[in-house]
Amino acid sequence: MPRDGTATRSRILDSAERLVKVNGYAATSVDQVITESGTSKGAFFHHFPSKLDLARTLVQRYADADVAELREAMAHAEAATDDPAERVSAFVRWFEERDEALLGEESNCLYISILTERELVVDGTSDPILGAVVAWREELTRLIGAALGDREDAPDPEALADHVFVTFEGAFLLARSTGDPTTMRRQLRALRQMLEAVLR
Amino acid sequence: MPRDGTATRSRILDSAERLVKVNGYAATSVDQVITESGTSKGAFFHHFPSKLDLARTLVQRYADADVAELREAMAHAEAATDDPAERVSAFVRWFEERDEALLGEESNCLYISILTERELVVDGTSDPILGAVVAWREELTRLIGAALGDREDAPDPEALADHVFVTFEGAFLLARSTGDPTTMRRQLRALRQMLEAVLR
Repeated sequence: MPRDGTATRSRILDSAERLVKVNGYAATSVDQVITESGTSKGAFFHHFPSKLDLARTLVQRYADADVAELREAMAHAEAATDDPAERVSAFVRWFEERDEALLGEESNCLYISILTERELVVDGTSDPILGAVVAWREELTRLIGAALGDREDAPDPEALADHVFVTFEGAFLLARSTGDPTTMRRQLRALRQMLEAVLR
Repeated sequence: MPRDGTATRSRILDSAERLVKVNGYAATSVDQVITESGTSKGAFFHHFPSKLDLARTLVQRYADADVAELREAMAHAEAATDDPAERVSAFVRWFEERDEALLGEESNCLYISILTERELVVDGTSDPILGAVVAWREELTRLIGAALGDREDAPDPEALADHVFVTFEGAFLLARSTGDPTTMRRQLRALRQMLEAVLR
């Protein structure tokens, strides 16, 4: 029973994530999630007393995976080279090289669907997103700061660090509008080239 | 009567834009728009037979204003200097200097709320957004291309041009998450500094 319960819970979360990413949070009903995940009303409400409970778990799970991906890219960049500027390039390139997963069919970011709903921001459901934003900011500020050194005219390393998050989210939206599956890769490449120019 | 009708129509659109930007499209009901705009059901449906008609007009109006802003910034940049790279800087700076309006209280971009709803993308309601994206892309590819010249290792001017749109949309989402009103200005500044480094 516990194993089966865990599997059902994951299946519900996977279906909900897919639906919320594609259609938005307000446009996704609990009934749709139940149908899509092939579960029952009883099983659903056993795991999630309300749609809001589902949203909270969904956001936390997504943000945890996002931070894990950050750590993986960072470990890759630090293993690749000792040169600070080259580490920044290696970090961005790690995402460029795996963007089929990032920008496959109907790819989207759960953050966008959640941050669009003001109620979810006000009631704290979106807080794990801020946690992930801060994790990316801290890690990348350290990496970019090391590459900038103590140049007098250096741009703000924290703003450059945040710009990586900005590029991901903006590129997801651009891809949504144009339908062009090369968008994410091209935008990550442009980001890397601009960072390389700044850090040169 | 016609003048009064035009005023009512604008008031409905203004209220709807505010609600959709803040709460999202699916979470905004026609009843809310009617209440917020202080109009009647009869007046509303006289101007907009359905919520979808309202959305279509709203998106077109917003995209038209966006393209007008692009043209204004471009005229400003071209009047400011003859140097192609300095024109790119002047273009971005134009937005940096007026971001109180861009990122005032609860500022947000209608595009995000619309692109989050897949149905609105599929049924063509979001098409004017693509029209605006293409207008920005064409004007900025021309401007950035002139500054890049025919350098062999030059980055893709179209990707750099699209990155301006990407920065705006990503920064709106970052600001939504952090609640930090300096986000847009800092991100535009980082964008300008990176473009200046690439074009140096």
